[in-house]
Amino acid sequence: MNFDFKTPVNRKGTHSYKWDVEDHELPMWVADMDFKTAPAITQAILNRTHQDAFGYNIVPQSFYDSVAKWWKKRHHWDIDPKWVMFCSGVVPAISSIVRKMTQPQEHVIVLSPVYNIFYNSIINNNRIVVESKLNYQNETYSINFEDLEAKLSDPKSTLLIFCNPHNPIGKVWDKETLKKVGDLCIKHKVLIISDEIHCDLTHPEYTYTPMASISHDISQNTITCISPTKTFNLAGLQTSAIVVANETVRKQVHRGINTDEVAEPNTFAIQACEAAFNHGEPWLNELLMILQENRETLTQAITSAFSELKIIQSEATYLAWLDCSNITDDTQALCDYIRKETGLYLSAGHIFGGNGDQFIRWNYACPKTILEDGISRFIKALTHYQSNHT
Amino acid sequence: MNFDFKTPVNRKGTHSYKWDVEDHELPMWVADMDFKTAPAITQAILNRTHQDAFGYNIVPQSFYDSVAKWWKKRHHWDIDPKWVMFCSGVVPAISSIVRKMTQPQEHVIVLSPVYNIFYNSIINNNRIVVESKLNYQNETYSINFEDLEAKLSDPKSTLLIFCNPHNPIGKVWDKETLKKVGDLCIKHKVLIISDEIHCDLTHPEYTYTPMASISHDISQNTITCISPTKTFNLAGLQTSAIVVANETVRKQVHRGINTDEVAEPNTFAIQACEAAFNHGEPWLNELLMILQENRETLTQAITSAFSELKIIQSEATYLAWLDCSNITDDTQALCDYIRKETGLYLSAGHIFGGNGDQFIRWNYACPKTILEDGISRFIKALTHYQSNHT
Ligand SMILES: Cc1ncc(COP(=O)(O)O)c(C=O)c1O
Ligand SMILES: Cc1ncc(COP(=O)(O)O)c(C=O)c1O
Repeated sequence: MNFDFKTPVNRKGTHSYKWDVEDHELPMWVADMDFKTAPAITQAILNRTHQDAFGYNIVPQSFYDSVAKWWKKRHHWDIDPKWVMFCSGVVPAISSIVRKMTQPQEHVIVLSPVYNIFYNSIINNNRIVVESKLNYQNETYSINFEDLEAKLSDPKSTLLIFCNPHNPIGKVWDKETLKKVGDLCIKHKVLIISDEIHCDLTHPEYTYTPMASISHDISQNTITCISPTKTFNLAGLQTSAIVVANETVRKQVHRGINTDEVAEPNTFAIQACEAAFNHGEPWLNELLMILQENRETLTQAITSAFSELKIIQSEATYLAWLDCSNITDDTQALCDYIRKETGLYLSAGHIFGGNGDQFIRWNYACPKTILEDGISRFIKALTHYQSNHT
Repeated sequence: MNFDFKTPVNRKGTHSYKWDVEDHELPMWVADMDFKTAPAITQAILNRTHQDAFGYNIVPQSFYDSVAKWWKKRHHWDIDPKWVMFCSGVVPAISSIVRKMTQPQEHVIVLSPVYNIFYNSIINNNRIVVESKLNYQNETYSINFEDLEAKLSDPKSTLLIFCNPHNPIGKVWDKETLKKVGDLCIKHKVLIISDEIHCDLTHPEYTYTPMASISHDISQNTITCISPTKTFNLAGLQTSAIVVANETVRKQVHRGINTDEVAEPNTFAIQACEAAFNHGEPWLNELLMILQENRETLTQAITSAFSELKIIQSEATYLAWLDCSNITDDTQALCDYIRKETGLYLSAGHIFGGNGDQFIRWNYACPKTILEDGISRFIKALTHYQSNHT
C-alpha cells in the first residue's frame, strides 16, 4: 500500500455534514468517505492556493480532455471533449435538467429504491415522481419491464432518471438491460438522465458500461452525469461533468445550467477534477482493494451475528444494503433505536422509496478501526433490540 | 504597509476569467483584483486543505455570526444572525430570487447604467427588464424619481434590483435617497433586492448605509445581498450571504436557493468568508489606501493627458467610470481599438445600459506598476485614435 487508508481523519468540528453529530456518535450514513483523498488532489489544491488570487474562473480545455481521457482509458467509452460541460455537482445538474427539459406536472420516472435526492429534484420543481419499483426476489433486484414500459408510454412521461451503478442497491446494470431501457425510452420519446457518479466504484469483478455507449441512438437520447467526487471524496469541491452527444439537447442543457448559475467553477473545482483523473488512478486502485476488504469484513460480521439479516450482493459503491425484512418493516424505527442506543448513525431505507423501508444503508468507506467500531455498535444495538422485541 | 500590494501576481495560465487573454494583453475589465488576498484567508484555505477530507459541508452558526458582527462593527447595522442565509454567490442569489419572487413576464426594474449581469438574471428567467435611467448632469448621476415611480406603479412591476454602492458609477446612495426609493417600493408593493456587494469598498470620505437599515418597514421589504468576494478578491470561492428580516420572504428565498442548488457551501466558502470578516480588517484598511492612490494616479494621468475625458467622481468600488462623450458615442468601438492597438482590455459601457455607451469602465485594482502600464497603453491608444478620427 502506497497510500494511507488507515489513519482516521478527524472530521469533527470541520463543518462536515456527515460528522455534524454528537460527540459519542459514529456517522455511517451520507455518501462521503472518511479517508484522506489522493495526495495528488491535495497537492493540486495547495498549488492553486499558493497562487493567492481567487477571482473568476474559466473552464479550460484541459478539463474536458481529462474527462474524455479517463472514460476512454477506464471505461472504453469515447467521449468527444466537445460533449462535456462543467457543472457544480451532479444534483445541481439533475435539478437544472429537470427544469429545462421537462414541464411542470410532467412525469419523471425513477426505478426505486433509488438515491433519495432524485425525488427532491423532481418534486421541488413541481414535476411528478413516478416510481417504477424494481422487482426484488432472492435478494436480487431487477427491472420490471412491463411496469416500466407502461409508465414510459404515458404521454405525460418525459424523463427517466436512471442510476448506473444504482445507489443504494449497488447494482451495475448489464448491457442487455441498458439496451432494453434505452430502446424503450427512445420508443416512447422519454429523455434519459443517466447518473453514473458511482461508476468508478465498481467492484473489481464487475464491469460498468455507460448507458450512452450502448448505441448511437441511445447516446443521442441520453444525458450522462459524472464526477470524480464520490470516487475521490471531493463532494465539497463541487465539480462534475455533464456529457451530451446530442447537439440540440446539449445547447438546451448548457443554457439551463447557465441560467441556473451552476455552470461556473470555483477556484479549486477544475484543479481537483483534473488531478483526480490525470493522477488519481494508483490511489483509486488501492481504494478499491480497501473497500473490498471492508465489504467482506462487514458482511462476514453481520451475517454471522444475525442469520436473519441479509446483505445484498453488491457490485459497486461503498454502500451496503441490508435486508432487515425478517426483523422489521420499519427500519426508520430500527435506525433511531440503533442511534439512540449506541450512537451509530445509519440511513433508514424508506427515503429511497420502493421496498426501502425494509432496508438499512450502511456507508463502509472508512478506516478499518472505525468500521469495527461501527460493527460492534450495531451488534450491540441489534442484540438489545431483538431481546426487547421478541 | 504590512501587506503586499506591490508584487504583481502572475495570473496567466491559472484559468482566470480576467486573464484569459493573449500574452501581450493587459486586462483591466472584469471586477476582480490583481492583488494577493489577505494572508488570513489564504491561511484559512491552507488549514482546511490540510484536513484532507473534502466531503459535504454544513453552514455553521459561526458563518452567520461573522456576517452579523462585521456589519455591526463596520456599518452599524444590526443584523440578527437568523436573517442570514448562505448562497454560492450574489448573482446566483439574484437569479434565484427573481425566479422565486416574481413570475414570468413581470417587470423587474433596474436603475441604469448598472451591473450588466442584472439584465441576464432577469432576461434568462423570462422576466422583462424595465430600465429607469439615471439622470446625468454635471458629471453626476441621480435618480429620476418621477420616472422611477411611474415604472414602480405599473401593476406588472414586482421587483427592483437596486445596487448600493452602485456599479459602474461608483455611487454610494445617501440616506434620503434610500428612504425615498424604499418608501416608493413599499407604496407600490414592489420588492427590493439590494445588492450591496461593493459596500466595503466605499472610499474613506463617504459612508455606506444599508438599504434595509433605513426603517423597519423598508427592512421588511428588502432582500440584501452581500459577500466578502469583491472586497477580499474571492469571487472564485463562491461565497455570499442573503439577509432577509421578513420571515415570510426569508422562507421563500430559502426554498428558492435550495431548489436551485445554490445553497450549499463548497469546502472553502465558509472558511474564506469567516477569515475575511473575522481577521481581514487590517488588510482591508490598507487596501482602501492603495485603491485611493491608484484612483488618484489614474484620474491625474488621464485628465491631464486628455482634457476632453472626464472621470466621474467616485464614492466606492475600484472601478473608474470614464465619460468619453466628447470623443465618441460608441465606446465599444473605442475599446476595441484600444485593445487592438495596445492590448489594454477595458469594459465598454453599453453593456451596463442607460447612457453607458458613452463610457468606459476601468478596473484599477492592481499593483501600481501594472496600473502605470495600463495608463501608458491608454494614452498611446487614445492619442492614435484621436489623430485618426479628427
Ligand atoms: C446517485 C448519486 N447521484 C448524485 C449524488 C450527489 O452528487 P453531487 O454531490 O455531485 O451533487 C450522489 C451522492 O451520494 C449519488 O449517490
Ligand atoms: C454589483 C455586483 N453584484 C454582483 C457581482 C458578482 O457577484 P458574485 O460573484 O457573488 O456572483 C458583481 C461583480 O462584479 C457586482 O459588481
